[in-house]
Amino acid sequence: MPSAAGRGQGQDRRPENEDSSAADDYAKERYGVSSMIQSQEKPDRVLVRIKDLTVEKADEEVWVRGRIHTSRAKGKQCFLVLRQQQFNIQALVAVGQHASKQMVKFAANITKESIVDIEGVVRKAYQKIGSCTQQDVELHVQRIYVISSAEPRLPLQLDDAVRPEVEGEEDGRATVNQDTRLDNRIIDLRTSTSQAVFCLQSGICQLFRETLIRKGFVEIQTPKIISAASEGGANVFTVSYFKTSAYLAQSPQLYKQMCICADFEKVFCVGPVFRAEDSNTHRHLTEFVGLDIEMAFNYHYHEVVDEIADTLVQIFKGLQERFQTEIQTVSKQFPCEPFKFLEPTLRLEYREGVAMLREAGVEMGDEEDLSTPNEKLLGRLVKEKYDTDFYILDKYPLAVRPFYTMPDPANPKTSNSYDMFMRGEEILSGAQRIHDPQLLTERAKHHGIDLEKIKAYIDSFRFGAPPHAGGGIGLERVTMLYLGLHNVRQTSMFPRDPKRLTP
Amino acid sequence: MPSAAGRGQGQDRRPENEDSSAADDYAKERYGVSSMIQSQEKPDRVLVRIKDLTVEKADEEVWVRGRIHTSRAKGKQCFLVLRQQQFNIQALVAVGQHASKQMVKFAANITKESIVDIEGVVRKAYQKIGSCTQQDVELHVQRIYVISSAEPRLPLQLDDAVRPEVEGEEDGRATVNQDTRLDNRIIDLRTSTSQAVFCLQSGICQLFRETLIRKGFVEIQTPKIISAASEGGANVFTVSYFKTSAYLAQSPQLYKQMCICADFEKVFCVGPVFRAEDSNTHRHLTEFVGLDIEMAFNYHYHEVVDEIADTLVQIFKGLQERFQTEIQTVSKQFPCEPFKFLEPTLRLEYREGVAMLREAGVEMGDEEDLSTPNEKLLGRLVKEKYDTDFYILDKYPLAVRPFYTMPDPANPKTSNSYDMFMRGEEILSGAQRIHDPQLLTERAKHHGIDLEKIKAYIDSFRFGAPPHAGGGIGLERVTMLYLGLHNVRQTSMFPRDPKRLTP
Repeated sequence: MPSAAGRGQGQDRRPENEDSSAADDYAKERYGVSSMIQSQEKPDRVLVRIKDLTVEKADEEVWVRGRIHTSRAKGKQCFLVLRQQQFNIQALVAVGQHASKQMVKFAANITKESIVDIEGVVRKAYQKIGSCTQQDVELHVQRIYVISSAEPRLPLQLDDAVRPEVEGEEDGRATVNQDTRLDNRIIDLRTSTSQAVFCLQSGICQLFRETLIRKGFVEIQTPKIISAASEGGANVFTVSYFKTSAYLAQSPQLYKQMCICADFEKVFCVGPVFRAEDSNTHRHLTEFVGLDIEMAFNYHYHEVVDEIADTLVQIFKGLQERFQTEIQTVSKQFPCEPFKFLEPTLRLEYREGVAMLREAGVEMGDEEDLSTPNEKLLGRLVKEKYDTDFYILDKYPLAVRPFYTMPDPANPKTSNSYDMFMRGEEILSGAQRIHDPQLLTERAKHHGIDLEKIKAYIDSFRFGAPPHAGGGIGLERVTMLYLGLHNVRQTSMFPRDPKRLTP
Repeated sequence: MPSAAGRGQGQDRRPENEDSSAADDYAKERYGVSSMIQSQEKPDRVLVRIKDLTVEKADEEVWVRGRIHTSRAKGKQCFLVLRQQQFNIQALVAVGQHASKQMVKFAANITKESIVDIEGVVRKAYQKIGSCTQQDVELHVQRIYVISSAEPRLPLQLDDAVRPEVEGEEDGRATVNQDTRLDNRIIDLRTSTSQAVFCLQSGICQLFRETLIRKGFVEIQTPKIISAASEGGANVFTVSYFKTSAYLAQSPQLYKQMCICADFEKVFCVGPVFRAEDSNTHRHLTEFVGLDIEMAFNYHYHEVVDEIADTLVQIFKGLQERFQTEIQTVSKQFPCEPFKFLEPTLRLEYREGVAMLREAGVEMGDEEDLSTPNEKLLGRLVKEKYDTDFYILDKYPLAVRPFYTMPDPANPKTSNSYDMFMRGEEILSGAQRIHDPQLLTERAKHHGIDLEKIKAYIDSFRFGAPPHAGGGIGLERVTMLYLGLHNVRQTSMFPRDPKRLTP
């Protein structure tokens, strides 16, 4: 007769460390290695979430599934920390009515990161358990079954992986370097920090789309395999396509613009963007996620700038409101000041930014682009003066922008283009685009671009095109900078760079 | 002094058809070709949406921006149909107090598809205007300025492009073939049918994500450039990656599974999927959008099947509630029966499906896969018997599914796998995946797969893996089948197939 615990999932494999005393083991039905879950049956057992195990549940008998985070045997007892995503609880297996000494030994020998089903009674803890998220309760184990075993040697320790670097340096305790993390990403992603980072990133995407749909935007899907490299062919990946060659899209821009020409008026898309750039920096990836916007406007591209800036503000606000737990979790490992922003968003002209830099001792020309150090310095100056981590730099020099950027009618040296910055780093680049085929042709010629190669692009504007503007946001950068992290590889689940293609 | 209309956007280019009588033209400030909108100024003019022009606005003076859909001059009058997305209104320019004969002539000569700004008075129509969406009002034009001119020869006519094929055949009137549509996609996408199709498709994505986020899923972003072709290397596109080669992901499955192994528990992603298959059918694309789900379950993979089926049901319901206008618009050109579904979703076992087919005279083996014609026939049989266009076929023969599919513990010939169908065509394929590295190795060997090539995949399960299942939905197919369309190229904005890489 199967025990209640065994209902549905037989305990047909006995523990390997079973000893000769098994016959006398009064608890032998209460632990073991479950047979592989192959959907044999549908037991009506309810598994309670660890985060819901609070003093309100004291003295209740519950079933829980979790990973063995740590385990510590001590005489006739074994203390386990059972983990589920960002939450964990202490569990105690002690020789007594429910557990035999064999059962305690079995529990103590379960490898870290194994997944177990535990039946236990929730008990109020005598004193706060500082090392767990569920500090006021512990679980007194009555049954324990291994659902999936982890190999005994882990490639990295989760506790090391969440240790603040400062602590590691000061106390000589282990931390985990980035390559080890990335090589063993499925373990690294289990840390509370990683769980929080990627839940928050999911939230950024959700808030981005929620906001834009509320504003009347339509989501589009643009092709990633394209027949011609749109911007001259540099930094583009080549794909073999049946008997011919194709390219991976460096941006959805042409397609966003075609949708504007096709009267969708306000469009956005979320998708991969490919850059064959041999840049090995903290903020470049060869494949990243673009949050892209394009919008027809009535009379002035600032209509679009305002919509984009407000979308980012709604994201920042939404994160503050809905992801406070995640922000706190990440800050334990990577402390940083809360992200600050103004409403409405601060908009400076490029020349004002240059003036601030010059005042701070930087020498640069009016039509010179911002270097990365100058970008960061300007971010600090803006923060000091305006107390914001987010601002717009408008009216870039025409010379440093792509050929399709609309020139500023008021000044031949500047253009209707803008970048947006978070904590002094660029997260969005955008512009009013030229919607007139004649001017577009002139500007392409001026840039020395082969007109034949961009014929399809220019032809898109020949059948009536509304004035429009847009921009592309780098998702990983927004996540990184919002949380004050230091490398875009921390905010890409499976990052791709010139040296990394795996996992 | 600029006229009121000219405020902000000068009318500095006079119409080309200006004649010697211009000097006597009392309306000369009231029409013309606007200079290109370069964001010169920010006029406080409000542009009213065409869909908001109803009898409630009768006798109001409004500004509207739209495209010239059609134009018909008749003596001293010119009737325009002004279009904005799915909506249009009749506009009248008539010689009188506001318009001179030169102005009427100017209006009559504006090319179709040009974008114009019109100031006019909304008037109640004497009789319903059957050819417009705004049937009860017309616009009496007082000023008209061309914002962006279309070239006079359009590659296709919008009226032809929305004509039901039946009408074309019966009355000998023109329709537009698919290649012409796709070659000139920006024009084809302007039709009311295309506008409706892609607004509804945006809605499918939105409903998919809304539902899953409500169910506690996390959105993930998976890489598209991968180092190894996961399923043996067939049908995969090769990318040159710096000094090495890489591939385009045929599915996000490995990464979804890694996220499950990394404790995200319930994940989804929306993104491009690449198949280098030389299939030229109505339902295959080389690049399509996958709506992918993966979920850890407690004891039975039907927990996941139920979640996926309910997600699709929520999409169908949401479309009915929020996209009725779009569904009606599409059905004018492509009439079809409304999409029917049951709650809860009908789930048949594969053997039941085979039995129904055999009863209908089909000869097939127990372990044979469904051919496309048999799939469709079964769809009709199910519709007849159960009155649903959506159902699940569960427990596929193990032999016809990939190596990572969990075998059915109750029957060595079947597996814990399923497909879902809409109007008799497959839209989702899924299964419980093997989460045990040992069984996975055995099954891979059985399939003759090189273990070295899938080492990273198998290793993902070595550190504790929960039982899990999932599936991938083809977005374009769902849109096509929900609306009863006939080709997946109608529901991909810029389709890619072995013969088409542009636009």
